[in-house]
Amino acid sequence: MRVLVLGGDGYLGWPTAMHFAARGHEVLAVDNYLRRRLAAETNSQPLLPTDDLPSRCDAVASLSGKSIACRDLDCTDGEALAGLFRDFAPDTVIHYAEQPSAPYSMMGYDQARLTLQNNIGTTLSVIWAVLRAAPHCHIVKLGTMGEYGTPNIDIEEGWIEIEHKGRKERFLYPRQGGSLYHTSKICDTDLLAFYTRLNGIAVTDLMQGPVYGISSDEADRDARLRPHFHYDDIFGTVINRFVVQAAAGVPLTVYGSGSQVRGYLDLRDTLQCVELATLNPPTKKFEPRILNQFTELFSVRDLAERVKQVGDGLGLEVGIRSVPNPRKEREEHFYQPAHDGLATLGLKPHVLSDDRLAEMIEFVLRHRDAVDVGKILPRVSWA
Amino acid sequence: MRVLVLGGDGYLGWPTAMHFAARGHEVLAVDNYLRRRLAAETNSQPLLPTDDLPSRCDAVASLSGKSIACRDLDCTDGEALAGLFRDFAPDTVIHYAEQPSAPYSMMGYDQARLTLQNNIGTTLSVIWAVLRAAPHCHIVKLGTMGEYGTPNIDIEEGWIEIEHKGRKERFLYPRQGGSLYHTSKICDTDLLAFYTRLNGIAVTDLMQGPVYGISSDEADRDARLRPHFHYDDIFGTVINRFVVQAAAGVPLTVYGSGSQVRGYLDLRDTLQCVELATLNPPTKKFEPRILNQFTELFSVRDLAERVKQVGDGLGLEVGIRSVPNPRKEREEHFYQPAHDGLATLGLKPHVLSDDRLAEMIEFVLRHRDAVDVGKILPRVSWA
Repeated sequence: MRVLVLGGDGYLGWPTAMHFAARGHEVLAVDNYLRRRLAAETNSQPLLPTDDLPSRCDAVASLSGKSIACRDLDCTDGEALAGLFRDFAPDTVIHYAEQPSAPYSMMGYDQARLTLQNNIGTTLSVIWAVLRAAPHCHIVKLGTMGEYGTPNIDIEEGWIEIEHKGRKERFLYPRQGGSLYHTSKICDTDLLAFYTRLNGIAVTDLMQGPVYGISSDEADRDARLRPHFHYDDIFGTVINRFVVQAAAGVPLTVYGSGSQVRGYLDLRDTLQCVELATLNPPTKKFEPRILNQFTELFSVRDLAERVKQVGDGLGLEVGIRSVPNPRKEREEHFYQPAHDGLATLGLKPHVLSDDRLAEMIEFVLRHRDAVDVGKILPRVSWA
Repeated sequence: MRVLVLGGDGYLGWPTAMHFAARGHEVLAVDNYLRRRLAAETNSQPLLPTDDLPSRCDAVASLSGKSIACRDLDCTDGEALAGLFRDFAPDTVIHYAEQPSAPYSMMGYDQARLTLQNNIGTTLSVIWAVLRAAPHCHIVKLGTMGEYGTPNIDIEEGWIEIEHKGRKERFLYPRQGGSLYHTSKICDTDLLAFYTRLNGIAVTDLMQGPVYGISSDEADRDARLRPHFHYDDIFGTVINRFVVQAAAGVPLTVYGSGSQVRGYLDLRDTLQCVELATLNPPTKKFEPRILNQFTELFSVRDLAERVKQVGDGLGLEVGIRSVPNPRKEREEHFYQPAHDGLATLGLKPHVLSDDRLAEMIEFVLRHRDAVDVGKILPRVSWA
């Protein structure tokens, strides 16, 4: 299969490119290094530097003999992207090419505008590249569970049947994002739903929870193949951040009460999910398949306590400190999201075991000197 | 009151500016003439040419002594717009500054991108201009009834309480637009809802149906004060188009079966609604007030038959011709939209009487030579 990975330099994009290449697919990874630039501008560099895509593709080739092609291209450029689709003729495009940080999107007008223009602009480009240059290409798009917010009713997988005044209709599940970033992803979903309804293109929209980890079969082969590992308040996800705090000897910073519950998943399960979606394209025409992509629910406080327990077991003295919540969000809330679709496709979850947490902490301990604790505390407030 | 009208050159923006000026408000009208450029590019010029804003503002001053200030500014430029808010310190901003045509948005990638960038970009700029430069300014935003689509349940005013598996939550009413244009307005609604939820800004989002007419108290004073009147397939709304077809002696073109029902309103009622919203700002903080803005429901076939009957009475021989529907839409559908909010605020509807239709047809008959029938048939297909 010919697999195009947009955002191929990213935390998930790079391991995805390696994952498909290792399984014999022909892979082209595209990135314009936007996230690297934004991380540098906000002093949010990852724990360890990573080489650019051409160097890492060379490393893959020399280590495994598998080839990954790469291109530096701004995916909001619809003409250039359509040209690339014409040349590469992908069977599947995996679209990660978005500004991925909620705090970044809340820094000010310029960051909000960049986030909206980049994320919606890229999604529109991808849709039109498919329409114009590869009409049978399956779009696998990474959305976020954060699009749903924390409603007081069960969260279904993308759609909901509403009974109202004696009549019924099936709708896209109503969405209410907690940041401008999340709102940009809601707009992506609306765009994908509209063009799918109109043109019958094949779309899988994956509503993903926060991802943790740095390991995958391919990434573990060599230090040069690791994905970047952000632990800062802007680009780092909460489990990765706690792991770094434990290793660095600073208290884990819980935002507010820590009662916020979300669905999390191991990076290796992202790869599994994206592969399952790719190998099993949607069967319904004229509506996107929407799947909720996470494996386990945790509250932030649960996570802090798990990391503390494992860290203490490794001889670290891990503290937990509540800080004023920089986000405006419900801290005490109902949360019951469905996630049957990917299980039905065959997902075998990697759960967050103590061993897994210990491995992650030990990894950071080996690079403890690289930790800049100034990057961890929240620097962006929603207020 | 200090009233800023964005899109002040438009079909609705210009009469709105005059309406508020006539009532003693201080008015600044802003436009970058985007719609004029797009109309010229697509050979969709209005029935009669209109002067630019400075000339029309001069005409208003010389005829009525009322002054309307104007500025040529691209409202997607957030810095410039914030500067303008700082200088003018509006109490209310009325935001019409969007690419208003569904068919235009469906012409191709470039038009889709322009529509998204302009409409969402302007809405983001307006929100941030308020946040940064005029935090008490009330945003009155023109949305569209087309955001809701034609669901099989009652359409409520913006919000719906959903009962699901024994629990309840109130959500933004789920939206499903019929074009990229409508989808851009859905994104606008999501942006306004998000920033209102976060910051407690004052927002009224008016879900407007198709508008007809060319008259208002102020516009009728002098030919120079008329709003532009589009009758083409791209920028013209259906009633205006039928009126021109009747006057020009070409059959009224009904798209498909003509069973599509929508809520319509007289241009004078747009002015009334926008004034009512402005004089009665929302009382709830942290959520936008959403009002459905139309006065009467008609099917397209009803409208064609009404126009034919009135035209025949004027001695015209009006034909009706069904053409293949260029849009993908449900033609037979349930349609029951609530619209109590504006009535509660005091809206006194102008209904679509035979006299009103006759006036419109007679107006066009006086300018019959200006009609280019080549602009009327659908040139843009959704397929």
